[in-house]
Formats: sequence, C-alpha cells, structure tokens
Amino acid sequence: MRPNNRANNEPRAIKITRNYTKHAEGSVLVEFGDTKVLCTASVDESVPRFLKGQGQGWVTAEYGMLPRSTHSRMQREAAKGKQGGRTMEIQRLIARSLRAMVDLEALGERSITLDCDVIQADGGTRTASITGACVALTDAIHTLVENGTLKTNPIKGLVAAISVGIVDGTPVCDLEYIEDSAAETDMNVVMLEDGRMIEVQGTAEGEPFSHEELLTLLDLAKQGCEHIFVAQREALNC
Amino acid sequence: MRPNNRANNEPRAIKITRNYTKHAEGSVLVEFGDTKVLCTASVDESVPRFLKGQGQGWVTAEYGMLPRSTHSRMQREAAKGKQGGRTMEIQRLIARSLRAMVDLEALGERSITLDCDVIQADGGTRTASITGACVALTDAIHTLVENGTLKTNPIKGLVAAISVGIVDGTPVCDLEYIEDSAAETDMNVVMLEDGRMIEVQGTAEGEPFSHEELLTLLDLAKQGCEHIFVAQREALNC
Amino acid sequence: MRPNNRANNEPRAIKITRNYTKHAEGSVLVEFGDTKVLCTASVDESVPRFLKGQGQGWVTAEYGMLPRSTHSRMQREAAKGKQGGRTMEIQRLIARSLRAMVDLEALGERSITLDCDVIQADGGTRTASITGACVALTDAIHTLVENGTLKTNPIKGLVAAISVGIVDGTPVCDLEYIEDSAAETDMNVVMLEDGRMIEVQGTAEGEPFSHEELLTLLDLAKQGCEHIFVAQREALNC
Amino acid sequence: MRPNNRANNEPRAIKITRNYTKHAEGSVLVEFGDTKVLCTASVDESVPRFLKGQGQGWVTAEYGMLPRSTHSRMQREAAKGKQGGRTMEIQRLIARSLRAMVDLEALGERSITLDCDVIQADGGTRTASITGACVALTDAIHTLVENGTLKTNPIKGLVAAISVGIVDGTPVCDLEYIEDSAAETDMNVVMLEDGRMIEVQGTAEGEPFSHEELLTLLDLAKQGCEHIFVAQREALNC
Amino acid sequence: MRPNNRANNEPRAIKITRNYTKHAEGSVLVEFGDTKVLCTASVDESVPRFLKGQGQGWVTAEYGMLPRSTHSRMQREAAKGKQGGRTMEIQRLIARSLRAMVDLEALGERSITLDCDVIQADGGTRTASITGACVALTDAIHTLVENGTLKTNPIKGLVAAISVGIVDGTPVCDLEYIEDSAAETDMNVVMLEDGRMIEVQGTAEGEPFSHEELLTLLDLAKQGCEHIFVAQREALNC
Amino acid sequence: MRPNNRANNEPRAIKITRNYTKHAEGSVLVEFGDTKVLCTASVDESVPRFLKGQGQGWVTAEYGMLPRSTHSRMQREAAKGKQGGRTMEIQRLIARSLRAMVDLEALGERSITLDCDVIQADGGTRTASITGACVALTDAIHTLVENGTLKTNPIKGLVAAISVGIVDGTPVCDLEYIEDSAAETDMNVVMLEDGRMIEVQGTAEGEPFSHEELLTLLDLAKQGCEHIFVAQREALNC
Repeated sequence: MRPNNRANNEPRAIKITRNYTKHAEGSVLVEFGDTKVLCTASVDESVPRFLKGQGQGWVTAEYGMLPRSTHSRMQREAAKGKQGGRTMEIQRLIARSLRAMVDLEALGERSITLDCDVIQADGGTRTASITGACVALTDAIHTLVENGTLKTNPIKGLVAAISVGIVDGTPVCDLEYIEDSAAETDMNVVMLEDGRMIEVQGTAEGEPFSHEELLTLLDLAKQGCEHIFVAQREALNC
Repeated sequence: MRPNNRANNEPRAIKITRNYTKHAEGSVLVEFGDTKVLCTASVDESVPRFLKGQGQGWVTAEYGMLPRSTHSRMQREAAKGKQGGRTMEIQRLIARSLRAMVDLEALGERSITLDCDVIQADGGTRTASITGACVALTDAIHTLVENGTLKTNPIKGLVAAISVGIVDGTPVCDLEYIEDSAAETDMNVVMLEDGRMIEVQGTAEGEPFSHEELLTLLDLAKQGCEHIFVAQREALNC
Repeated sequence: MRPNNRANNEPRAIKITRNYTKHAEGSVLVEFGDTKVLCTASVDESVPRFLKGQGQGWVTAEYGMLPRSTHSRMQREAAKGKQGGRTMEIQRLIARSLRAMVDLEALGERSITLDCDVIQADGGTRTASITGACVALTDAIHTLVENGTLKTNPIKGLVAAISVGIVDGTPVCDLEYIEDSAAETDMNVVMLEDGRMIEVQGTAEGEPFSHEELLTLLDLAKQGCEHIFVAQREALNC
Repeated sequence: MRPNNRANNEPRAIKITRNYTKHAEGSVLVEFGDTKVLCTASVDESVPRFLKGQGQGWVTAEYGMLPRSTHSRMQREAAKGKQGGRTMEIQRLIARSLRAMVDLEALGERSITLDCDVIQADGGTRTASITGACVALTDAIHTLVENGTLKTNPIKGLVAAISVGIVDGTPVCDLEYIEDSAAETDMNVVMLEDGRMIEVQGTAEGEPFSHEELLTLLDLAKQGCEHIFVAQREALNC
Repeated sequence: MRPNNRANNEPRAIKITRNYTKHAEGSVLVEFGDTKVLCTASVDESVPRFLKGQGQGWVTAEYGMLPRSTHSRMQREAAKGKQGGRTMEIQRLIARSLRAMVDLEALGERSITLDCDVIQADGGTRTASITGACVALTDAIHTLVENGTLKTNPIKGLVAAISVGIVDGTPVCDLEYIEDSAAETDMNVVMLEDGRMIEVQGTAEGEPFSHEELLTLLDLAKQGCEHIFVAQREALNC
Repeated sequence: MRPNNRANNEPRAIKITRNYTKHAEGSVLVEFGDTKVLCTASVDESVPRFLKGQGQGWVTAEYGMLPRSTHSRMQREAAKGKQGGRTMEIQRLIARSLRAMVDLEALGERSITLDCDVIQADGGTRTASITGACVALTDAIHTLVENGTLKTNPIKGLVAAISVGIVDGTPVCDLEYIEDSAAETDMNVVMLEDGRMIEVQGTAEGEPFSHEELLTLLDLAKQGCEHIFVAQREALNC
C-alpha cells in the first residue's frame, strides 16, 4: 500500500490559496500534501536586454528552498554564494513551462518573474511550483487586464505539472518524498488543458524503463493533471 | 494619528504560531502586524571548528527575505551570489541576541541554527525575527531535554526585541514600514525579562537624537518588550 | 529537404576516435557531423565524501564549450566566475546517463570523471557527449581491468544518446544547429542496447506536442540509437 | 588598574596627522593609542545610480584591515573573495556617521568615498575610523570650496566616535584590545559637537546591561567625544 | 641526452594547422611536439569601455587548459569559480605579445580576442599559444582586409615565442614537460622577426642564473624563434 | 632631465624602517622615493597541504594596494570579490623571489607569509615590495633563531629588486610613475648579492627592445641593486 492508502493513480490533496501575501501582483500558496510552496508573480515594466525593442514580453522564474524546508537542514544558497545545479535546472523548467501559457507578444514589453520558494518539502516541489505559479501568473495578468494596462488577455490556458514514477515495480502518481527516494524511475510531466505536453522529463534512477512503462507513466500523468486542472479552476473560480 | 489608530506606545498585534512546519526541531511563524517571519531552529550534533573540544555549544542565525516579501521585488541573494551588508548585519544581531538566552556550556558540544526567513515585510523584520527565534529555540531545546539528550535545561530566559523611533517628532513603538521609512531616528532594543538589555542600536536617519529622546525611546522599548514577553509566554504555555 | 539531403530518420555521420589525447585513461573525440566533442575519462582512487566507506564507486561528469566552438563567441565560464544553468543541466544529465552503464559496487571505492569539452558545436552537443563519454569510460575501465585493479568488469552495457525533434511540423532525428534553432519540439533520449531508456527529456520550444508526436519521436530516437551503438561497437572492436 | 594607568574616563592619546599620503583629496592617519588607521577621502564627480538627477551628493565608506594589523594574521578579504559581515557592518556605520555631518544637497551631484584602512589594530578601530574620516572629509570638502567647485560649505559640524564598555564590572572609556576582549558590554557612540547622537550601538558580550549602566556608559562616551573634538579642532586649526 | 635525442638548440617538431574549426575568423591548432593548443581569433565590432571613441582597436587573449590536458586531472576553473594566478599571468602575456604585431590605430575601433585552449600539455603551452595565436590573428585580419572592412593591413610582422632553460646545468631550447619540471632556470622569450624582443621572462626555479647563462639562453631563444618563423611562414604561405 | 635631476643610473632615495608595526614577526616600511609599501612577515607553524610531511617549509606572499594609494581611486579588490591579474602576477613574483633567499629545508615545517601593502604608489611598487619583504623576512627568521625555534639560520643571502626601462629612448634606473607610464620598455630584475639573478621580466610596452638595449638595462639594474643592498645592510646593521 502507498502512504495514506492512496490509490496508485491518486494525487495527494491539492490546496491552492490565492492572495497569500500582500505585496505581489499574484501570490499563491500551493500544497501537494505536505509539500508547500509559496509562488509569487512580480510584474516589471521592462524586458531583459536580449529582448529590448522586439515588441514582446518575458516570463521567468526563480526557485529556492528554505534551509529547513527539508528533513535535515540544507545550506542556504545565498550563504554558499551560488545556486546549485538542481536549483538552476528547476527554475529553468518552471520558466519554460509558464512561458507556454502566455502569448508573449500580447504581453507587451514587460516581464513577469515567478518566485517559487519551498516552505516545506515532501516530494514534488517542482511540479507543485509550476502548478501554483500558473495561478499566480494568472492573477498577475488579470490585474494588468483589469487596470487597463493590457487590452487583450495574453493567457492561452492553464498548465499543470505532476510527477509520476515506478516504485517497487509499481507505477504511481504524485510521489511523496518517501516514495521519490525509493523510485526506480521518476518522471515529471507538464501539460496543457487539451492534453498536449510542454515538458516530459523521465529519469531512471535505478532500473531503466521500457517503452511500455513509459506509456503507463504518461497515462498516470494525464490523470493526475486532470485533478490539478480542477483544483486550479476552483481556486480561480473559472 | 498612527496607522490603524495605534497609541504611540502600542505595539502591533503579535501572533506566534508554533510547529508551523514539520521538519525542524523548532518552527515558529511570528507576526508583528503584517510582518511575517518563519523562524526555524535546527539542531546539529557538532560545533564550528573554532569551538571543537572546548566543551560548549553554539547558537547561530541566518536571515533572508523572500524576493517578493517587499513592496517591490528584491533581487534574490542566492542569484546575486552574495548576501548584502544589511543581511549580514541582521543575522549577526539575531545570533548574538539568541546566544544571550542560552548557557552554552550546558548546551554541550552541539549547534543550533536559527533560520529567519521573511515571508512578508512591513517593518521590524529583525525584531520579529529575534522574538520568533526565541520561541523556536526554546522548542528545539525542550526537545533535547525531553528526549534525554540534555540533562539540564540550558535556557536562561526569554529574549524579546522591538523597534522604537521618532516619527514626525513623536517617539513611537514598533514602527511599521510606512513609519520606518519616514523616521528621523530608528532604534532596536533587545531585552531580557528582567529588563536588562542585550542590544541597543539607535541610528539617526535624519535629525540626530538628544539624550532625552534616547531615554524616552528606551522607555517605549521596555513597554513594548513587556507586551512581547506576554505573547511568548502564552505561545509557550509558561 | 533536410540539410545535406538527410532522411528524416537518418543521423549525421558519426565518427569516434579513441586515444585522441595521451594523458587520460580514456580519451575520445566524438563527431556527429560538424559537432565535435573531446571526452576524457579520468580515474581517481577516492570517492566524494558522501560515499566514503560505503564500498561503492562514483561516476561524474563536467561539460564545457570552448568560447569559439559556437557561431559567435561565448563568454568563457572560467572568466565569468560561474557555470551557467545550461552547463549544469547538461553535466548532470551526462553523469546520470553514464552511471547507468556501470555497476558502482563492482567499481569499488574509486571515481571516474568524464570531461566533455565541445571543440566545435553544430547541435546535439549533449547527446554526442554522452555517446563519446560512453566509449571513454569503457576504455578507462578496461585499463583498470587489464592492470588487475578490477577483478570483474563493472560495465553493464553501452549507452547512446540522440536528439529528435519536430521541425516545420516534421519529426526528424539528430538535429543539427540550423534545425535545432527552428524546432517546435526538442527531445533528447538516452538508451541502453536493449532499448530501455535512461532519460527522456522532451521540451516544447514552440507548439506543445501531442501523445502521438511523442510516440513518433521515441521511435525515431530508437532508430538513431541503433546507429550509434553500431558506431560505438566498431570503435571498440566489440 | 587599567593598562597604562589610564583613568576610567580617560581616552588614549589621540593623534591626527593630516596629508599623510599625497594623492587623496583628504588623507589622515588617526591614532588612538596603538590603533592606527589611514583614512582617505576621494572625490568623484558622479553619484550612484539611485541618486542620479536628484540634485544631491553622496558620502560612502569602505573599511579594511591589513592582514597583519592584528595579533595573529587575518586572511586577506580580497583573497577570500568577499568582505565579511563585520567589515560590512563597520563600513555601513562609518558611512552613516559621516553623512550626518554633510548637507548632501549643498554637496551637489558628487560623491566622496572614505577609505578607512587599519594599519595597526589595538581596539576601537571603528571609532578611530569615524574620527579620522571626519577630518579627511573636511579636508576634501575644503579643497572643493577653495577651488570654487562648491560655492557654500556643506559641512554641518564635526563627528566623533568613541567606544565605552564594562570591563570586570567597571565602566570605562576607549577600550583597548585587551579590555575589549574581556568586556561584558561594549558600546560605540557617534556624536555631534552639540552632544546629540548619530549612533548608539551597545552589545552585551557577556552579562546583559541595566538601564543605569547604560546611562553611565553614555556619560563616559560624552566625555570621551569632547576629548576627540578638541583633537580634531587642533588638527584642523579651527 | 635530451628526450628523443634532441640537440640542445633544437626545438621540437612544430606543426601549425589552419582552419582547424569552422566558426572562428582565425582557427589554428599549434603543436610543439606533444603540446597541442587550439588558438582561435574572434572579431568583435566594438572596443572595451576604456577605449571607446579613441579611434583605435584592441587585441586581448584568454587562456585555458582542458581538465585532462595534463598528466593528472586539474580542477576545471569554471567549476572552481575563478581563474588561477598562472592562467591570468599567461593570458596577459599572450595579449601583450600579440598587440605588439598589430598597429592598433589601423585596426580601427574593433577588438580581436585570442582564445588559447590547451588540448594536450607537454611543456611550453604559453609559447605555443603565442606562436599559434599569431597565425590565427593573421588569418582573422586577412579576412577583414579581404572583405573590405580594413583598407590597410594593420599587421606589423610575426611574433614567435620559445622557452629556454637550464636543465642539469645545460642550457637547452624548447623544454618539454619532463625537462621543464627539472629545470633550474626557465625563460620565455617573445621575439619579432628582426630579432628584437617583446618579452623576456626568466625565472630561477632552483639555482640563480649568471649574466653569462642569461646570454647563452638568449642566444638559444633566438635560434629557436628562427625555426618558428619558418614554420609560421610555411603555414601562411608567405 | 629626469624628475628631481636624477642621473640615469641613480635610484631614488631608499628608506627602510624596521618594526613599523608591532604585531608582525617582521614589519618594514620601505620607501623608494614617494612609493611606500608596508611589508610584514607572519610566521605560521604549519605548511600548505601539498607540503605536509615533506620536512620543508614555505614562503609565500600577498600584495595589495590601498584604494587611494594611486592618483585616482582604484576599486577595492575585497569589494570587487576578486584579485585582479596584475595583483596575482605581482604576488607570485614576490613569493618566488623571497623563496630564493631561504633554505626551505632548514626552515622546517613552517610557513612565512609576506604581506606587501602599498600605502602610496609612485612607480616600482613590486620592486620596493621585494626589497622591503626581504628585510621583514630576515627579521622574522632572526626571531625564530633567537628564540631557539631554529637551530641554524636558513637565510642564504639578501635579495634586491629594481625596475629599469627605456624612456624617450634613454635607459634609466628605478622609474617613478611619470616615467613608467611613458616607458617604451619596462624591466624588473631581482638579484642576489653575488650578482646572479632570480628573475628578469622585460616587457616592451611600446617599441620592442634590442639585444644591446637589454644588456644596457641589465647593467643599470646591477648598479641599482648594489645601492639597495647597501640600504638593506644598513637597516639590518649587517
């Protein structure tokens, strides 16, 4: 049995709290079970240098873990003086995923930065981050639409992300930490509402995975993302 | 009038939530009005090199602000590759303050790190951090006492910290951001329950302050700290 | 038509030159068309601290591009003072892929570092790196077997890697730079000789990709890897 | 008895040598007993970016210790690749203190940087730095007045700084190293000629300090600063 | 006897391969025996800030060693986060040497960067780098002349560099690694075709060297550089 | 005429003040005209890791310039976060030069660090540094001999360093800043008392230099070093 008697295709309880902090244009606390990530969206009326004068906007992301979000304390990256490879990999993934839901030309020459900071980690922080950042980004853009900065809404749809994996030979959806650390294969899938994919990142931590296993995992991911879209739409009342 | 009709000697509503996250030996969310700081205490069964073999423990602290805890987004220190001078100054202050409440010899050769991460900033983040870290540290040490690691309790008492300052010529207690940014003088006081002081840091941002003004500020700080001790004792049921 | 009239499922000419430099235990120049990467394997009779005393070895990787391996000159990472996110992501991928071909316990308490340095870039540098590093690692381990350091050969099989993608709506295998920069979807697959997978990393750069497109890409990747295994075996005379 | 039979309220011999080096607009060697700090003031006809176009000037400071200014050799911060927290704290203090003596609008859009480099350390380097930098800054500004760059003198008055503390239960003024390292409480006070204060930083290194002790220390600091103002005025012939 | 029976005044076989990679304006693989360095010249239509608007160009250089170009693996400077002192010293030497062969005013406001990356090291990497970079720079400038960017050729002549030294009491030319590591004195000479010198850097690693030994070494260097000029002219067909 | 009517072979007034600061085992202020460098020698009873257990000692050096030692203010290297190439080059030169005067085996397993910090710069800071560090190192070693730590004196002799160069076509000795910045050729020579050389570093900043010019410069350097040895012996009373 999985922890908490979850079915193999059952994600953890997903909770999305909007307006969690007061300064950001979008601020969302997303919870996948015990994993809790604060996702804020900050609007900046400029674009990075490589985009200056090209009539389009930009969406980027940064990711961090509070030092004691994890079981044993991690060294603070600000104190170490650099972000590790895992951090960089995750924030690049979040940024690519979020850009897929926005028409950057319709956004105009402005940037939105998604900060995803893990308050408590229990597996799946990157997929929770994408899921929560999607809602924070939506809120930030709605603000721009409502205050007339944007004439048209540049949002193309929602994105959701879920981890799936093979644990003790069994494919399961939304791994928590204890499963993740024992998984033979770990895969993160980022999906649009129509089922098309933005990212598929499958890694064999132990045993390599077969084509058939890959298909099973993709199917579980699709089911998981459908749960997430429901939670996102409920949170956004749409 | 002050914002929210506060009296000049009245601190903001203080809220202390213990066990806010699940991994740390002590985990406290402290709120001074809209200022919210997550303070965790992490126990490590070793000491820094300069203390090895000296039969005493250590208490240290790190401080950070989430990038969008502030009104406009601050650059992430992990991305910049270094902690700024303000961060270093604050985390050194927190550490010194917390060491004052612990008998380091009775703690034995182990370290406790207090991580104070600002979730939302509205003035007074360093004093809120000390106040919350005091409770997190108490919880962490209680754990060590309860599980038999420590035979005697090394805690000497509580510490509280409050900011006071002169705004538009009027001395006030517990400045929120809008007051802080307009203050002529800003002073942080860290106090023990018996009224003795661990730190006094007064800075004239605009006009220099007179001896009489300093006395008035110290009196306001004493009143403010008494409020905080009540809140700490309630949170700790002691 | 593709550049050089390649068929959609046809990889570029693959050339593997062993013993390219004289100091390393394994030294391979791998060429995928105009992409040229020097892959060296260096044996070190120790393991990283987190593995000390656990009776197993380690395989790691570092990746770099010579500043003018690319069309316009890139800034040297050593001069910038840090490795970028893309570099970190790639070297982590190479390391995971190579570890999959080695029985780390049979390797004993020693480390092998794969350095993959791009001499000339024309798309697919990470998949060429994995392909070449596989041969360099094999050579390094053969040395350890031949000189009696290892009693049993810890190699479990070869790994190959290929990029596939959708360019102008058409799925193609082994994208060169001009195709890569125009691709809607880009996917890297790392495979074992039995067809099972170690890594699948698919990214929609433009249009999201459907389940059917993913299946087509996986099929192209399998064909591509089979070509690579032939080239590796020829180079290794096995 | 104190070292050298000093009375408790007696500062060390204070010596201020102007024009100590030849390139800087202001160059002062300040000595508080065996503590020797070279303070230079450098004028730059521009302001930091955050002040551009606001019609005001800026005063900033940097602090450093020569590696063997101390009893045992300290690691060079330039070699370590970063300034430590203590350095940052001190240079921020020096800068704030010096800004208090200048009318920044009257200074116009130019910057003055005070470099305080400790040649020999024996306690009180930060207070000696402020004291010496005050004279160097005065010299630099006089140059600007004399050569007609400034029409009016933006100097509002002198600043002096002194350390006071409680050593073996006794409050004393201007601690030298052997006293400083044994002090229960250490306090630095920065004062204007009219007795008003710019900074008060009191820290209990051992025992907390009472309100009465704080008053005694403030009184000692006032007496000490009066000595310093005399020395500054003599050095400046004013 | 020297390794490979070389005469004391005999340089190793020198091989210069132009157009070694395809992207750079100049790309040369230079070999001094087993020492192999890839030298590329990259043209940039701008100059560093300190030269803006002064009507002249700039030539600069960067140097690196692949981690396993050496007998045992060196740590990658990009991973360490900084370039070492030896690297900086060498790249400054290369840049100064190359600037001596170009009329910077005739080059116009553009920069050429020489990247010298050591593929395989066996002594003399800095002199090989200068020798190869001279050819790469010549090729890059010819391109600018041929495409009409430059009206006149700013090249003043060739530069060659050779190491000489005293090994076991005997002065020899072009030390390979085994000689270099045993040399009492090591000297690098950079010369123009007319025999005048740009750089002489002699270092006594063991025994100091006398005036007479210095004269002998200079004579050997002159003979060595004459060999190199022949190889450079052959490679350039001039 | 040269500045101050110096003859072409005449060094500036050289002044060596021992015991300039009180903490270091050797502390020397060396002045070559207006160039002033504080050189301290610090003894450490350990050796760098690469020398552990080899029964020999080590001598190393660090170099720095105070920010306003120069005509216009230089950025502080500690604030920039790294030492520049020029600094690294100079400190490596100082260290090599000083090691040449010590029998490292006779020194035993201990290190001496020479810190050379430029108080005021007017050309020739590296040669003044070597000259002053030689005296500071001698003092530090005498202390070890006198207190019985060392049974035999490991000093082999004095080292002196001087700059020579060609200014406006004329070879001159000991260039001050105004000459140095106009020199066509600049050469630094480090010499032992018997006239043998440890370092010769000649650089053509403008015109290349001929063999004859090199001989003239070496002769000037020899004369200059003889002056310096006299000054060193006077300072050391030997």
